Amino acid sequence: MSEQPNEGYKGATHDTALDNLCINTIRVLSMDAVQKANSGHPGLPMGAAAMAYVLWTRFLKFNPHDPLWPDRDRFVLSAGHGSMLLYSLLHLTGYDLPLDEIKRFRQWGSRTPGHPERSLHTPGVEVSTGPLGQGFGNGVGMAIAEAWLAGRFNRPDHKLVDHYTYALVSDGDLMEGVAAEAASLAGHLRLGKLIYLYDQNHITLAGATDLTFTEDVARRFEAYGWHTRGVPDGNDTDDIDAALREAQAETGRPSLLLVRTHIGYGSPKKQDTFHAHGAPLGEEEVAATKKALGWPTTDTFFLPPEAVSHFRQAINQGATDQQAWQRRLDAYRSAYPAEAAEWDQVMGGRLPTDFAAGLPAWKPEDKPVSTRVAGGQVLNALAQRIPNIIGGSADLNPSTNTALKEQGDFQPPDDTPGISGAVGGKWGHTGRNLAFGVREHGMGAIVNGMAAHGGILPFSATFFVFSDYMKPAIRLGALMELRVVYVFTHDSIAVGEDGPTHEPIEHLAGLRAIPGLTVIRPADANETAEAWMIAVQRSTPTLLVLSRQNLSILDRSFSQEAGVARGAYILAEAAGGAPEVLLIGTGSEVDLCVKAQRRLKELGVRARVVSLPSWELFAEQDNSYRERVLPAAVQKRVTIEAAASLGWERFAGTEGTVIGIDHFGASAPGEEVMKRFGFTAERVTAAALRLLGREEEAAREDTGIDGQGETAVAATAPSEGHS
Amino acid sequence: MSEQPNEGYKGATHDTALDNLCINTIRVLSMDAVQKANSGHPGLPMGAAAMAYVLWTRFLKFNPHDPLWPDRDRFVLSAGHGSMLLYSLLHLTGYDLPLDEIKRFRQWGSRTPGHPERSLHTPGVEVSTGPLGQGFGNGVGMAIAEAWLAGRFNRPDHKLVDHYTYALVSDGDLMEGVAAEAASLAGHLRLGKLIYLYDQNHITLAGATDLTFTEDVARRFEAYGWHTRGVPDGNDTDDIDAALREAQAETGRPSLLLVRTHIGYGSPKKQDTFHAHGAPLGEEEVAATKKALGWPTTDTFFLPPEAVSHFRQAINQGATDQQAWQRRLDAYRSAYPAEAAEWDQVMGGRLPTDFAAGLPAWKPEDKPVSTRVAGGQVLNALAQRIPNIIGGSADLNPSTNTALKEQGDFQPPDDTPGISGAVGGKWGHTGRNLAFGVREHGMGAIVNGMAAHGGILPFSATFFVFSDYMKPAIRLGALMELRVVYVFTHDSIAVGEDGPTHEPIEHLAGLRAIPGLTVIRPADANETAEAWMIAVQRSTPTLLVLSRQNLSILDRSFSQEAGVARGAYILAEAAGGAPEVLLIGTGSEVDLCVKAQRRLKELGVRARVVSLPSWELFAEQDNSYRERVLPAAVQKRVTIEAAASLGWERFAGTEGTVIGIDHFGASAPGEEVMKRFGFTAERVTAAALRLLGREEEAAREDTGIDGQGETAVAATAPSEGHS
Repeated sequence: MSEQPNEGYKGATHDTALDNLCINTIRVLSMDAVQKANSGHPGLPMGAAAMAYVLWTRFLKFNPHDPLWPDRDRFVLSAGHGSMLLYSLLHLTGYDLPLDEIKRFRQWGSRTPGHPERSLHTPGVEVSTGPLGQGFGNGVGMAIAEAWLAGRFNRPDHKLVDHYTYALVSDGDLMEGVAAEAASLAGHLRLGKLIYLYDQNHITLAGATDLTFTEDVARRFEAYGWHTRGVPDGNDTDDIDAALREAQAETGRPSLLLVRTHIGYGSPKKQDTFHAHGAPLGEEEVAATKKALGWPTTDTFFLPPEAVSHFRQAINQGATDQQAWQRRLDAYRSAYPAEAAEWDQVMGGRLPTDFAAGLPAWKPEDKPVSTRVAGGQVLNALAQRIPNIIGGSADLNPSTNTALKEQGDFQPPDDTPGISGAVGGKWGHTGRNLAFGVREHGMGAIVNGMAAHGGILPFSATFFVFSDYMKPAIRLGALMELRVVYVFTHDSIAVGEDGPTHEPIEHLAGLRAIPGLTVIRPADANETAEAWMIAVQRSTPTLLVLSRQNLSILDRSFSQEAGVARGAYILAEAAGGAPEVLLIGTGSEVDLCVKAQRRLKELGVRARVVSLPSWELFAEQDNSYRERVLPAAVQKRVTIEAAASLGWERFAGTEGTVIGIDHFGASAPGEEVMKRFGFTAERVTAAALRLLGREEEAAREDTGIDGQGETAVAATAPSEGHS
Repeated sequence: MSEQPNEGYKGATHDTALDNLCINTIRVLSMDAVQKANSGHPGLPMGAAAMAYVLWTRFLKFNPHDPLWPDRDRFVLSAGHGSMLLYSLLHLTGYDLPLDEIKRFRQWGSRTPGHPERSLHTPGVEVSTGPLGQGFGNGVGMAIAEAWLAGRFNRPDHKLVDHYTYALVSDGDLMEGVAAEAASLAGHLRLGKLIYLYDQNHITLAGATDLTFTEDVARRFEAYGWHTRGVPDGNDTDDIDAALREAQAETGRPSLLLVRTHIGYGSPKKQDTFHAHGAPLGEEEVAATKKALGWPTTDTFFLPPEAVSHFRQAINQGATDQQAWQRRLDAYRSAYPAEAAEWDQVMGGRLPTDFAAGLPAWKPEDKPVSTRVAGGQVLNALAQRIPNIIGGSADLNPSTNTALKEQGDFQPPDDTPGISGAVGGKWGHTGRNLAFGVREHGMGAIVNGMAAHGGILPFSATFFVFSDYMKPAIRLGALMELRVVYVFTHDSIAVGEDGPTHEPIEHLAGLRAIPGLTVIRPADANETAEAWMIAVQRSTPTLLVLSRQNLSILDRSFSQEAGVARGAYILAEAAGGAPEVLLIGTGSEVDLCVKAQRRLKELGVRARVVSLPSWELFAEQDNSYRERVLPAAVQKRVTIEAAASLGWERFAGTEGTVIGIDHFGASAPGEEVMKRFGFTAERVTAAALRLLGREEEAAREDTGIDGQGETAVAATAPSEGHS
């Protein structure tokens, strides 16, 4: 607990009438805003107003005038559709969110969008929520971040990091699997400073929860290792207060407070019905509700001055709290200057100046190495210098090669109070390897939360095909512009024996289409090192796509300087004049282009090899660079990637040939699968020859392709259609 | 329970020595196959052999010579990496899976791929498993199918449908959120004939489960409403037998049997370690294991004849069981001819001949209607005629419009034994509306399982942006070639006020890239009716993408006959000669093309409007049809879709203009969001004029675009790059 327990603005005694006025202020403000927008969700703010009020005025540590104060408590509105609850609280407690913004709820250009959006920089919005369950997982990531930072920076008598993570979660959140995964891990990790308030209103969008959600939630969370506590009357501020105190006192387990609320509380006709969930109450019912709550029925956006003034004490309280913390930081800076410097660096999102020192490099004569193995070596080198790289895999460390050596496991400390037989060992909450378990989706939401917390540079890892399980979290990472590295290995049908369920096909296309996400599929170990360098330097998410199989080290002597950072580059120029044909590949297929180039040279064809590890980075380059790499004058182009062809017409044009795979893979040794489905240098050579009208020679090159069913080559001229 | 309880081949008494021999036969055969393949997972088959043996020889109802017998028990190996366990059982019990196929485990063209693959038609493989948690959800879908078919077809003294669904699930399965979602729903629905064996070996790929999975699984499942029962010694066949009997006796709740096993059982050095999980044991350890199990150490693939002969009694047992069922079916046919005819039809996957009768149709002069509302009307009309359409939404019925009117809710029957206070009401397990809850991923796995069971034509529904949550299940639906209809509404930034978290961008691109999936985004109510017609007639999955907002009814008088079934068609031909420009759109954007065409006509431009609701269906057409719709001679093309531009170069070519949106959406009324981001007829008109070199006129048309940041227009010439 913090040194200055936040006892509420009025100390331990509370003015019930004032409390009720404040709570109703939240209700009416939210209801009015939804009504004015003629769109939104009034029911949750009205039902959950009391618990939110108690939390925000008596417990939550925050400074409205410095929303990013590092040691603030984090508050996540996981049930993001109740956004007006959060906006009401932000406005009332004095954040820079004026009433005019509330009046522009859900309107173009406002900072009060339908669901809270981190990327809009609405002050006090920690994460974008709305897709249910995500905020639940984000909160677990924040609590991990807090625990790790506390373990790393705090010293006896110097508590730099000491805050809670709270979330308001709904029935919908708790039905989502991502929340289940994160809950199980949070229980295992004994994240005692994680406190969730469950807005248990028994109503969902479509009806009553007894239609589909009759499980015993408390018992389930106890099974996960959580402390649970019911609050039978969600308007009983004393009981909410007591429950929160008990949760804070429970330092060895996360807490779930099951608060029985009434959706649309105060609405005479719509309370406790799903009609209050996702639509305005209507003018008439708004008036009736105001009357029932003793509010002036003619005004809209009426805020009782005494309520506002009570809420606004948060400003002084926050300033006081932050000043006390600042004094602690100053003292820390004197006592531990090196640690304080590191603190400034990690909290500022900066890297050590020497972060790239000691990175491994490979020579063309070195033996082939998979990009997953190379990636592991690079990651470990970076983690030596960048102290806040933390992450892990979904139970695949031996395969993804993402273990951080000698950095310990993030596990519950052996001395977790009240817990016997802890498994933590010496590292406890200071270890840097997270064992996420077979919980890909939870992992995605958790690393997002770690990044959103600040101070951490998190990564996740699993097989590329299982990016599917993480898709909702990856999208939100991109939307929130979080600095996260999503590592995926086993990146194509070359996975081999595991077969179609484990062989990605459509994944690159789908992920490249996500705005704001940088996808990099490096072609060899050195490109992998560059990719990691880019990933840690970008402020937005990067997704690395790495091979299972060994790949030759490419000869970069032609164009060493540009490389991955520019998205695409000329890896090997045509010998003896301007290129007649471009061979464009990514990842493991670049080497096929190099081999094809060699063969084409023998046949007198001038081919240029372009390595295209990142479409997004290439798109960021100026026209002249892009024209230099892919000259408009050369329309004979062969592109090759062991993935869906969708999108490759962008580079192949109408005259080129796209070599891809538009069907599922197969189970057999990886090399064989690649050959059978036509991912060979001979295929590239033949395709180039065909583009040059040398059909007979092409037929001689291109033998032994024996794919199942359809051809792997997609014709790209629009009128010729697509395979 | 079936009329002829399957008491095992030797009745109630068992020969322990023979049992052990049989169990070790499974172990050694699995181990040998993995070793020969030099790839695979020996640990699970060796650890779970005893429970699998007891289940398959004493309980499971199946006929190896008719793997598709409708009333067979379903067995799902959710932990698909243990595929050799299943292949061993299939071979040993006499399915058409010869030893040669076992010897070709994980090799090209074998029917024994790395993970079980339904689409390979390996007899006895019910579903493709491997991506963990999916099989768990599939089993729930199968149990729902069984319960519904039993409710619909069984009559007093005529039990046509009476089988169990068993699954073998692993630690990894139970960590996955999709399994948690499905488990919660299964508990709610009181699926008493669902029996899962949990292979609790305390080891995962990367280590011991105490690294990350320390929850109390039994308690969690009890919280869901499951019956649980531990089997402390997973090699104790009597106890496994007793536990299975108890589970069968528990008819009001699904059962989870927690069977404590030892991964790699029998391997002196690797048992109980993660080294036994995902790699061959090695020749030396294989020999040591054989020695320890009393097996000849020099032979590979040695099968003790007495074990084989014991297993093969399944053939006679299965024939006997099926004959008894056939007699019941014959009697049923006499007593209930109409019901029997329906039975034949639904189990044969056929539609009633009049299934399309009474479908609604709309005229251009009708008022605009959203395709979600039209879709709901069409679905209801189809459901009137097609008795086995069953499905529902992830708590979004009022929004997705997918409620089946007067078809009742699928809920636990009021008379569920041992349960008081049931919520089922009169429909019980005969209702056709499934309330999936806010469990999109579980929904996807469940509808897949319903389709895999046979007899059901299932559908799911949620917002399009949440297709992300279902992605792993959609992929598997496509891989398994299941007849499922995935309905998604709220299909673009036109969602409006809910904002970026709820506005799909990249989803169409990602889903179109999935092999074997048919994606249809209809442009109006009539195209929606056609889309649904196609969906129910295809044998593979169809994904419908429907609008939230109202759309005008298009005038189809030009080309009424082809329409959606051909993927793309000429909706409105250029007046007065061959088209100079093609305007190509999908969904809500087609109407913008129609309006632009009208304006272009005023400006003397001959434009053709092509509606392109399904890329996949269009790709299925022959070249001449495709050339007719999109003539190669007309390269001035404007494509428009309120989604990521990725992939559209396929139709726009290098000279065309792609209007898409390559950034996230915004929160504001939907019409405003569309306009602000440039989805207007004026934009289409202007783009067409620009292609024709009429720049000044274009500038006059194209006013008022006021997007955030980047332009919505992507230049598509490869060398000019992409936005």
